[in-house]
Amino acid sequence: MSEVLISEVGPRDGLQSVQRTMATADKCRWIDALHAAGVREIEVGSFVPAKLLPQMADVVEVVRHALTLPGLTVMALVPNLRGARAAFAAGVHKITIPVSASAAHSLANVRKTREQMVAEVREIAALRGELAPQVKIEAGISTAFGCTIQGPVPEDDVVWLAAQVVAAGADESGLSDTTGMANPAQVRRLFNRVRAEIGERTGAAHMHNTRGLGLANCLAAYDVGVRTFDSSLGGLGGCPYAPGASGNVVTEDLVFMFEAMGVRTGVDLGQLIAARAPLLAGLPGEPVYGMTPEAGLPRGFTQGALLV
Amino acid sequence: MSEVLISEVGPRDGLQSVQRTMATADKCRWIDALHAAGVREIEVGSFVPAKLLPQMADVVEVVRHALTLPGLTVMALVPNLRGARAAFAAGVHKITIPVSASAAHSLANVRKTREQMVAEVREIAALRGELAPQVKIEAGISTAFGCTIQGPVPEDDVVWLAAQVVAAGADESGLSDTTGMANPAQVRRLFNRVRAEIGERTGAAHMHNTRGLGLANCLAAYDVGVRTFDSSLGGLGGCPYAPGASGNVVTEDLVFMFEAMGVRTGVDLGQLIAARAPLLAGLPGEPVYGMTPEAGLPRGFTQGALLV
Repeated sequence: MSEVLISEVGPRDGLQSVQRTMATADKCRWIDALHAAGVREIEVGSFVPAKLLPQMADVVEVVRHALTLPGLTVMALVPNLRGARAAFAAGVHKITIPVSASAAHSLANVRKTREQMVAEVREIAALRGELAPQVKIEAGISTAFGCTIQGPVPEDDVVWLAAQVVAAGADESGLSDTTGMANPAQVRRLFNRVRAEIGERTGAAHMHNTRGLGLANCLAAYDVGVRTFDSSLGGLGGCPYAPGASGNVVTEDLVFMFEAMGVRTGVDLGQLIAARAPLLAGLPGEPVYGMTPEAGLPRGFTQGALLV
Repeated sequence: MSEVLISEVGPRDGLQSVQRTMATADKCRWIDALHAAGVREIEVGSFVPAKLLPQMADVVEVVRHALTLPGLTVMALVPNLRGARAAFAAGVHKITIPVSASAAHSLANVRKTREQMVAEVREIAALRGELAPQVKIEAGISTAFGCTIQGPVPEDDVVWLAAQVVAAGADESGLSDTTGMANPAQVRRLFNRVRAEIGERTGAAHMHNTRGLGLANCLAAYDVGVRTFDSSLGGLGGCPYAPGASGNVVTEDLVFMFEAMGVRTGVDLGQLIAARAPLLAGLPGEPVYGMTPEAGLPRGFTQGALLV
């Protein structure tokens, strides 16, 4: 049994940051390989207009394929009620709605105030009640640790927003370091405050590696009870070592950290690293990152056993 | 007042891994820039035979220059009694003696058993008593978290060796992840065990970033009371993102992590990043690493103040 849940976001967060479009069959082979490695939650795409994100035009087909994989939670991002309706129709198990804690970022990104986004969550939850009561709703608080537009984001705003989205009907609310500004002390403080407010509805840590602190921030979140972590295979979707990039935490390094600590992820590291092959087959020449795949596993390393 | 001590090892650990030799004047300018940024402990070189490490042939001159910088602890590596005698004569403030916890690594690296290395520490401490009683002696336990030759290193061996070197006269004993195999759970466990054995003589954490866990391991060490951290400007001395490399923790990223947490390092991040210029002037084209210098400081970031 795994003790933490690795939620792979590459097919959504990664691919939407890549200029090229991956063919549907390649996406499916990549998702198959992630599933074969033991990954049990994958954000497979985004329900947004195809003219805005052509990379996601085939999301219904990808969802249909992912639903055939046993034990997999098939997740998709939806930005609004229209996207939610399409996602429910496609049969996803879980949707994630990004809600920004930064007032400036919310307006710039989705042209809605934070209050309007809370209202959107409420409408989506009502629609879920009608059409697909079994679907889980996550509202991820983006820019929770700082914003490139407004700078620091008050912690009170984050705690308030997490309480609002849960009251509006979200099953859980996680915290996203959209801009790579989080530090471990802040991660511990903020997750503790959010948990004090919404308890077990506290969701995933979505950390970025923009300034090298991705794994340290995941460790800090783990220390205060977070058990779901978003990451991207090969750090797809932006060099985690470059400015302005998405810089998702690299799944391979994250799984290595937990497994080396003796915290079971349910993911086989060798097969996970092998899942880079279908990714690269679908996007030839795309840069991928990760230090564990480059360095290899340490001598004497075995999964599921503490290093003595 | 700083709350953690950043011990810069680039001029020793970094340069000894580089094929080229940096000119003495360039080394001095680099050390000046580190000192100007607020760095207060620098390992400026190694007292080893010049034919083995030509990069360190000028160590006496470099020490002489570093001794002119106010408030700086001038540190050097010495592998044996002969090196210690030369270091005492040069006037260093502190020496560090590497002692391997891996029996296999000790024989392969210095052709001595661990017991013979403990005897060497004892002789060095006796000589210090005669020649330079004010000099501090650190014995750094290398391969403390695993060994590329023997694989896992028993924690009992590390604790035993730390107790032995302190009994032999070392003022402090730190732990080095020479091979980049440490994980945060192990770092906390092992530092706690060493502290239970040798108390306040527990020294620095010397972590590597081979598998991306460098900062997470520094955070783990900080959590259990470690307050001195070794790191290398620009990760000099081997790509921290490549196999077989030295992969020192990057000083810039380490300082950013602590300062963002509100833990004062005494080091000015802007001036620290500026200290890359004299380093690169002395080694044109040498690859340097670090994500904070590439990404820049976050909007609204100020040192010495918590992000609100």
